[in-house]
Formats: sequence, structure tokens, C-alpha cells
Amino acid sequence: MTPQTTGLQAPPHALARSRELTEPALRAAIGRLHPLPRRMAAFSLGWCEADGTPSTSPGGKGVRQALAVLAAEAVGAPGATAVPAAVAVELLHTFSLVHDDIMDGDERRRHRDSVWKAFGTGPAVLTGDALFALAVQVLAGSGSEHTGAAVRKLAGTLGDLVHGQADDLLFETRPWTGPDAVTLGEYEAMAARKTGALLGAATALGPVLAGAPPRLVDALSEAGLHLGLAFQAVDDLLGIWGDPLTTGKPVHSDLRRRKKTLPVLAAMVLDPAAARRLELLLGSDAPPGAAEAGRAAAVVEDAGGRTFTLEEARRHATAARAALSGVPLAEPAAAELVALSEYLLDRQV
Amino acid sequence: MTPQTTGLQAPPHALARSRELTEPALRAAIGRLHPLPRRMAAFSLGWCEADGTPSTSPGGKGVRQALAVLAAEAVGAPGATAVPAAVAVELLHTFSLVHDDIMDGDERRRHRDSVWKAFGTGPAVLTGDALFALAVQVLAGSGSEHTGAAVRKLAGTLGDLVHGQADDLLFETRPWTGPDAVTLGEYEAMAARKTGALLGAATALGPVLAGAPPRLVDALSEAGLHLGLAFQAVDDLLGIWGDPLTTGKPVHSDLRRRKKTLPVLAAMVLDPAAARRLELLLGSDAPPGAAEAGRAAAVVEDAGGRTFTLEEARRHATAARAALSGVPLAEPAAAELVALSEYLLDRQV
Repeated sequence: MTPQTTGLQAPPHALARSRELTEPALRAAIGRLHPLPRRMAAFSLGWCEADGTPSTSPGGKGVRQALAVLAAEAVGAPGATAVPAAVAVELLHTFSLVHDDIMDGDERRRHRDSVWKAFGTGPAVLTGDALFALAVQVLAGSGSEHTGAAVRKLAGTLGDLVHGQADDLLFETRPWTGPDAVTLGEYEAMAARKTGALLGAATALGPVLAGAPPRLVDALSEAGLHLGLAFQAVDDLLGIWGDPLTTGKPVHSDLRRRKKTLPVLAAMVLDPAAARRLELLLGSDAPPGAAEAGRAAAVVEDAGGRTFTLEEARRHATAARAALSGVPLAEPAAAELVALSEYLLDRQV
Repeated sequence: MTPQTTGLQAPPHALARSRELTEPALRAAIGRLHPLPRRMAAFSLGWCEADGTPSTSPGGKGVRQALAVLAAEAVGAPGATAVPAAVAVELLHTFSLVHDDIMDGDERRRHRDSVWKAFGTGPAVLTGDALFALAVQVLAGSGSEHTGAAVRKLAGTLGDLVHGQADDLLFETRPWTGPDAVTLGEYEAMAARKTGALLGAATALGPVLAGAPPRLVDALSEAGLHLGLAFQAVDDLLGIWGDPLTTGKPVHSDLRRRKKTLPVLAAMVLDPAAARRLELLLGSDAPPGAAEAGRAAAVVEDAGGRTFTLEEARRHATAARAALSGVPLAEPAAAELVALSEYLLDRQV
């Protein structure tokens, strides 16, 4: 797992295979929605444009569905067992994007308008609610005798998402330096809930539905959690140094938005002089311009924030792999899980 | 059940009894939330003011929790069986108020600012999400062997709420008259989902957790649905003719907001001449002033819309009672259910 690779790796076959398995169920679930949220949900999934015409842009890659399917296969169950889990996780993920974009005021998502920007805030609230309701409905209706445990896991995951998002919103109001500054530990706890929990649910829910032993479920859940933390670290790197053509966001985007991401927090902990400079550049009442953001990026890099974050990504990727290799899992699914994890982290940074 | 009574009926003892049973669990659940949504959730439940000081205004009466407790007792189970159901229904109800107020742009709720008005739209979205997550968590963690069925019912109820809210939002965009006008059948289908489903869940979930026979669950669910429809009809009457001191809303509030409620829709169906006058009064680009709204109220009343709606409330109240009396239920809970229903509908109209 080498997060700083070229981004040119071919998509694992597992993605296409799992899409074939799960997409009919996902489309059937969306098809059951009221026409108003259905169209907005289809837009948020990348299936259509805001006016309802078929989409010209790619949607999500379906990594979470594939994780669910492969995790079920890794505990010896047919991939089909995981379909309700895969659909529920994708719906929960999409729900969180739609509502988070409202809360964060993000106008763009995957090179298009965000749902609230395209349809209005009220309709976007409704769309998120519809997606979440559907996630619970799909999982609760799975027919598996282990549905109760799966729904508990899903509800806990939503609780984590809300908790992490609340932390993230509060971080914005806290000072850059001093005793009330956000610590690296607080940041990791936030990221574990906001990003890790959902990938942990993706890898755990299929095995839960399959009735896998708790030891295997826990190992797969832990692998997903670490994968999520590695993914978030890469995301934080992309938020500062990502190519605008790839990310769809302006250069130094997260710095211009004064987001308290891992590279910045790490730089401030590693180098007190950098902390003072960053506070001057980012801590004023007005958002920094392009020049200030560029200077802040250089300060973060010189202080070691970029390297630290890359090391964090590697550390969590290694921990994910270790969690998988610590328990007996079925092949080829286990190897495919590792390959899919590498693919997920293989983004241009 | 006489919806047009004085509103001076004493609260049934069942309300206090069920509050004693369910409130500790509700407070414990809210206490598990992240501090940010926890405070907003406490505000939305009427427990504190926006600044966190203890509330000076009364919160909800806890009718839904009492319905859950009494319904469980009516199928012969201890009221305590229904506590997770009562808490989940109250959380789901509060979630829907918080998000609906965002979508409807309603600035006031129970004589106070709505959550989005007091805390901002993003935080209100988060609060609703937190409440809904908690509802599923509480019910999924009930420990009952019938949890799976209960969660399916809750998820279906949320699906209904979203569907009903989507209908309600779409109704606003439809014309007052002509082939695309909202029909009375469409209105009832919307109200059944938006209001009936939640009361149907309140009366069904306790019995579901108790493992009651489907025939009893269905009868109680149907009673709750009709009670909800009766409640909505009374609410529609109050939205036009309610005392502003009681409702906390301006006189003729729903007409000034040009809401397509049952009295108006009924008047337009019953009297084509009234329909044309109402379209002139309510259908222009600008919202009607106090004088136009007053004239519209008189037109609705003269056309029979008020009487029709009162009859609808009575019809559904009777149907609720019939559903209860059609199956063998345990006393005194069954009688208390009827008394509580009467209390719920006994509002000044």
C-alpha cells in the first residue's frame, strides 16, 4: 500500500464484479423512492444530471460495495450475501455526502454542483433523509437471520458519522494555537468516526449478515477502520497539494477554507515557529487569498506536516493489512481485499 | 372523540405514568449524543433554551410515548416492554419536526424559534440526523427478540415520513385548480404518510416488541393511523381558525402561507365558485395579506370546507375506536388508549 503512487493503476476486477452483483439492488432500492427524492438521489449517485438527463460524468467507483462483497467472500460466504450490506453502505455514504455538503457549505462535489447547490437546501435535506431511511430499510429487510446485529452496526455507524461531523464542525470554531487548539489525538478520533466508521461498516456488514465469527468480523471491521483513516490522510494531502484537474477543487483548497486538516495540525505540533506563521496566514478574520494559501502550504511542508501525514497514511494502510493477515480468511477474496485497498489509496498526491 | 370540544379536559393519568416510565430512557439516550447535537436536541425537545439554560416553556406532552406504552399493555405486556419503542418514536417525531421546519422555512415551533432559526441550518440538519440515528440505535438495541421486526417497522415509518414530506413539498408547486390540482385522495395519502404513519408506529411498536400476534399489531397500527389522520384534520382546522395565543401562529396562518390543507381543498371541490374566488385570493404571485386571508377563510367556511374537515376528523376518530374495539385488548389499557385519543383530539377549534 503506497499512497503516493501514480494513480494509473487499473481498477481491480473486483470492482466490476461487485458492481454487477450490487447495482441492480441499488437501482431497485432507489426506484422505490418518491419521485422527488428519487431524482435527487440519482443525481447524487452520479446517475443523472440535475435536469434528469443521463449523466455524462462518472459516479463513485463503488469501492465500498466491493469491500462489502469481498469481506463476505473472505469469511467464506457467497458475495451475494453481502448485497443488502453493500447497498446500505453506499446509501449511507451518499446520505452523508449530501448532508455534509449542506453543513460545510460545499458547492461542488465530483466536478458537479452539490445537491443543495443544484436543488436547494430543503430538497437536499429531504434527499439525505430518504437515502438514510432507505439504507435502514434495505438492511432491515435483508432476510438474513443476522439482520438485527447488522442493523445495530449500521445505526452505530450513523451515530459515529454524526459524532465525527459534529467534531469537525466544532474544530472550525476552535483556535489554531494555545490550550484549546485541536490536538492530533482529537483529529484522529474525529477522522475515525467521520471516515473510518463507514469503511469499517463496509468491511464488517457483509460478514455480519453471513453470520461470521466475531473474531473475523472484528478483524475485518478494524481493517476497514484503518483503511478509512489512511484514505482520510490521503484526502487531506489532496486537499492541499492535489491537482485541481483531478480533485475538481482549487489549488490549496483546504487551506483557503482554513480547514484544520492533519498536515496543518501536524506542522503546528512539529514546529512552533511554523505554528505562529500559520496562525498569521490562516487565523485572520478573512479567508486567505491564493498567495497566503500558497505560503501556508510551503510552511506546512517545510515543517514536516506533509511527510507526517504521508507516514500516517502508510501506518494505517499497514495496520489494515495486518488486521487482515492476523485471521484466517478465504482466498482469493482476502488478496482481492488487499488489492482493492491499494487501489483506493492510489491517488495522485 | 369529539374534536370540537373545549380543550380543557384534564390530561389523562396515562401521560404522567408513561412519562415516568420512558423519560429516564429518553434522557439517557440524548445524554449519549455528542455535546453539540445534544444541546440542540435538548432544545428541540423543550428541555432547555437556545443558550442552554433550563426551559421555561412546556415541551411536548408525550402523547406518542404514552400511546406506545398503553398499546403494549393493551396486548397484555408490561408497559416497560415498550420503552425503547416509546423513545424511538419520540426521537423520530422530533427528528421530523427539526428537518421539516428547515424544508418548510418555519421559523417558530411551540412558541419558540425553530432549531434552524436558533442555531443555523447546518447545525439543524446535524441535529435531525443525530436524533434519527439515535432512534434506530435505541430500537435496534432493545434486546427484545422481536427487534428485527420493530426496526423494519421504524424504517418503513421513516420512509413514509419522507414520502409524505416530499408530497407536501410538491403540493406547493401544483396549481389550485384544473386537472393538475391536488385531489382529496392525494391529500389523504400524503397525510397518512406524513402524520398517520408516526402515530401508527407509536401504537404498533410496543406490541411488536412484545411479540403480539399480527392481528393485534395490525389493529393497533390502524388505530394509530386513523388517530393521526384525525389529528391532522384538527391541525388543519387550527391552522386557519386556531387562536393565535394557543397555536403560537398568526390568525389564518396556513392561508397566509398558501398551504394546500384539507379545508381549502375540500371547499374547492365542494363549490366551484368558491374555488375561483380562492384561486384569486391565494393564487397570485405574492402571499395574501391579512384581509385577503380573512376573506379566504370566510369563503372556505361558506363553501363547507370547515365542516367537511371536522367530519373527516370525526370519521377517522371513529375508525380509530372501531379498530381498537374489533380485537380483544386488555383493560384498563384499552380504555386508557381511547381516553388518550380523545385528549389528543381535544383542542380548541
